[in-house]
Amino acid sequence: MPVPELDQAAMEAAAARQGRLTKPAGSLGRLEELSVRLAGMTGQLDPPLQHAVVFTLAADHGVATEGVSAYPREVTPQMVLNFLRGGAAINVLARELGARVVVADIGVDAELPPHAELRQVKVRRGTSSITRGAAMTVAEATQAIDVGRRLVLDERPEVVLTGDMGIGNTTASAAVICALTGLDPKAVVGRGTGIDNAGLARKVAAVVRALEVNRGAISRGPLDTLAAVGGLEIAGLVGVILQGAEMRRPVIVDGFISGAAALAAAALEPRATGYLVASHRSQEIGHAAVLERLGLRPLLDLDLRLGEGTGAVLALPLVRAAVRLLNDMATFDEAGVSERA
Amino acid sequence: MPVPELDQAAMEAAAARQGRLTKPAGSLGRLEELSVRLAGMTGQLDPPLQHAVVFTLAADHGVATEGVSAYPREVTPQMVLNFLRGGAAINVLARELGARVVVADIGVDAELPPHAELRQVKVRRGTSSITRGAAMTVAEATQAIDVGRRLVLDERPEVVLTGDMGIGNTTASAAVICALTGLDPKAVVGRGTGIDNAGLARKVAAVVRALEVNRGAISRGPLDTLAAVGGLEIAGLVGVILQGAEMRRPVIVDGFISGAAALAAAALEPRATGYLVASHRSQEIGHAAVLERLGLRPLLDLDLRLGEGTGAVLALPLVRAAVRLLNDMATFDEAGVSERA
Repeated sequence: MPVPELDQAAMEAAAARQGRLTKPAGSLGRLEELSVRLAGMTGQLDPPLQHAVVFTLAADHGVATEGVSAYPREVTPQMVLNFLRGGAAINVLARELGARVVVADIGVDAELPPHAELRQVKVRRGTSSITRGAAMTVAEATQAIDVGRRLVLDERPEVVLTGDMGIGNTTASAAVICALTGLDPKAVVGRGTGIDNAGLARKVAAVVRALEVNRGAISRGPLDTLAAVGGLEIAGLVGVILQGAEMRRPVIVDGFISGAAALAAAALEPRATGYLVASHRSQEIGHAAVLERLGLRPLLDLDLRLGEGTGAVLALPLVRAAVRLLNDMATFDEAGVSERA
Repeated sequence: MPVPELDQAAMEAAAARQGRLTKPAGSLGRLEELSVRLAGMTGQLDPPLQHAVVFTLAADHGVATEGVSAYPREVTPQMVLNFLRGGAAINVLARELGARVVVADIGVDAELPPHAELRQVKVRRGTSSITRGAAMTVAEATQAIDVGRRLVLDERPEVVLTGDMGIGNTTASAAVICALTGLDPKAVVGRGTGIDNAGLARKVAAVVRALEVNRGAISRGPLDTLAAVGGLEIAGLVGVILQGAEMRRPVIVDGFISGAAALAAAALEPRATGYLVASHRSQEIGHAAVLERLGLRPLLDLDLRLGEGTGAVLALPLVRAAVRLLNDMATFDEAGVSERA
């Protein structure tokens, strides 16, 4: 199914209504623009946004054993268990701000015990190292995208939020971003969970090597690129984003890893960009360039660099508030307030 | 009553706990700092923040008849009625985000009909024009500060939010800011509700004139300055801020007008600054300088310029979320998650 065009008539109606509300024109700034964009995505001035689902996809990365992360690899399954027990940042924020967390094992390199709240959708146990060849096959990348789509179809959220967990995934994300944009790894590779200078140098070298080793695949386009230098959760998030956009749902994009997925989704289906809401600007250095390429301005800039979907959930109250302002404020006529002199 | 010092022991306990939570150290960025500051203000790691009250103080300004605003003066009482009917932006946001709005007529130049939700605390019907002399007497400014204090004492909020309504009040706020900081009016005076270039030139000239005419009063200190070039809602907000700080309540400061009040409060009682949370950076050009002087980084930057307390209420979910993260996340020990390699 193709991603639909934005509904221009709904956007015009929203913009016109903004001009009649009891406030100086434009004084709600970016919340006005946001309300207009949301109308374009959904075709409605008052789209329902209560059923908000953050898809936190977890996977492991072959490159993680090459000294690119401050944390050991076993943290990926440990954090999945933490999500399931409700103790992680994403759980706390989702409870406080009104979202549901869907935790999916799309590629953790461990057998996780069955749990009612865990979606077991493993495509494979982690990727191969991107410094030595392709992370996964194109068939596996396609399967991961389909898994992401299926998660959204099963939940039928009113608003989609993206999240991730995977030790090593800022390295894979940086490689995807460099491959898709041509940006220099030095401008894109950051400290992730907080690696030291020697680790950062190893991480840059790993991305440079991954881009060289996988040059042929990268030249074949975004799907091959995703398979070659991406990750299972990144590919899954591409599916989440594309499915959300096809269903005309606003997609609130988290930080750096989600940004890599958004770039890949936009490369596969440029119209998907119209459905993206950038939640925040990550402290990870390459993220600003990703947002710029996507033409998105983030709502928040709080020096976050946690992932999981935390930034996306933090932006949710602003998204809902933008819609309530558009719909629930009185107009000048209704309130008997004088307009500009 | 003096403003208490921040509780260093509580801040240290909060910072230590942040380091034990299941996330890379510092990865929640400014929300970590915020949780530590809130602990310092309240003396508690988990301060109650449910009873949030935005104090939206309304008043008129003599200078408003001098072509400095895009809107006619009658909009002040009209908007107060809009607040009371629940149709303004502040009402919509307060309902959506969980705050109570206290609307106070501290100096509207009209007789407003009695209303259960209106605090009738008028000090006088509007100020005199600051371009021709003092806006009000020092006794009136003191009374307005006391009125603001009383509003907070009556509500006993767990978290205080500031708001304002008053045609002409960006002009008075700019004059207060210039008087207290020595900044050039050209760097501080902005377009307010959206005045054109000719209006902006008149507004700069009005502030320059106000600073000249009231030079003697300004030299006598912040209280005389507030009386000379301020406004009744600005003085009232000084009282709101000081009372909130004395009660060890976090005070979420809205935009430009609230920023002028915060500067004046800090000039009267420097320790009050420790209790301020800057909600957003207003589009009004002088606001960034105000925040810089106060040493505050705003949580949001959404090109807002509406006032009423809208930016403060929009920041409330972030403030509450920061506290929930500190208290409700699992520690590495509790969750059995490995720490850094």
